[in-house]
Amino acid sequence: MSVFYEKTINTRSIYEGKIIKVRLDTVQLPNGKESYREIVEHGGAVAIVPVEDDKVYFVKQFRKPVEKVLLEIPAGRLEPGEDPEDCARRELAEEIGFQPLELKRLSSFYSSPGFSNETLYLFLARGLVEKKAETHDEGEFLEVETLPFQEALRRASAGEIEDGKTIAGLLMAAYYLSRV
Amino acid sequence: MSVFYEKTINTRSIYEGKIIKVRLDTVQLPNGKESYREIVEHGGAVAIVPVEDDKVYFVKQFRKPVEKVLLEIPAGRLEPGEDPEDCARRELAEEIGFQPLELKRLSSFYSSPGFSNETLYLFLARGLVEKKAETHDEGEFLEVETLPFQEALRRASAGEIEDGKTIAGLLMAAYYLSRV
Repeated sequence: MSVFYEKTINTRSIYEGKIIKVRLDTVQLPNGKESYREIVEHGGAVAIVPVEDDKVYFVKQFRKPVEKVLLEIPAGRLEPGEDPEDCARRELAEEIGFQPLELKRLSSFYSSPGFSNETLYLFLARGLVEKKAETHDEGEFLEVETLPFQEALRRASAGEIEDGKTIAGLLMAAYYLSRV
Repeated sequence: MSVFYEKTINTRSIYEGKIIKVRLDTVQLPNGKESYREIVEHGGAVAIVPVEDDKVYFVKQFRKPVEKVLLEIPAGRLEPGEDPEDCARRELAEEIGFQPLELKRLSSFYSSPGFSNETLYLFLARGLVEKKAETHDEGEFLEVETLPFQEALRRASAGEIEDGKTIAGLLMAAYYLSRV
């Protein structure tokens, strides 16, 4: 047990939504005092860097929380009990219409551990073979865009990409590809 | 106006916390149908990669949402109206006890734009001069740890770091430092 551990004294459910749940925990701090932690529960998601012929596939979609269209690597939420690799294959088919011959897990990380438990499972997909999904998410509108790998990497490195998982994904993929 | 734009038809406040607010928006999708967006509002934060003598400074702290101690670059929430650069200097003093002679903004990005508007302003800090903060966040318990820059980079690249902003920060700093 870490000396920093915060013991839960009470937990109160604030909201049970379709995608997130929100709760307020009363915790005992290491110094014995009480404090509160506002926590957003999320079921986790995958994100995939799809690379073929030295091109990276992206999706552009409107993100209501930031009121903008963002350029992102394909991604999507895990269904309950779904294996992250299966989810990555499903999202690739749904979002860009490809199936990968090779799917390599690069990492899993927390997108914002200060207030949320959302875990992102990050993959590199290569050997892309056309495969349209039979179904799509209701209410998901997106456009596929490709960039040369070096240009994508330049944009991520230079601070021109606004989505955190896309920055981490491109830079980790570049490191991995430089070593295989 | 993007063809993907989602018009807000109704917005309902769910929760007004100290750190987050939660709301449920009813939106009109591009196909005319209605849908819902669960949105976590956050005031934004800074994260800093502090590098001195080829060492990177990290903080280890307990993160209640994931029930673990994480190794992260120094970071903290913006106070209302606070300039991100001022916030970065404040957090460096509070968390690791240094002031930077050079503070370079590397990027700003959204940590999880699918459900939150949290923006992270990312900085590289060099020329660290000792300066203890006069005040600390109540209820913040952390430990400073350093790693050689190459070892930090290896961990971030190899998927051994669990915090998204720390992965993005280290890899962007490495790119920037390789070019100056």
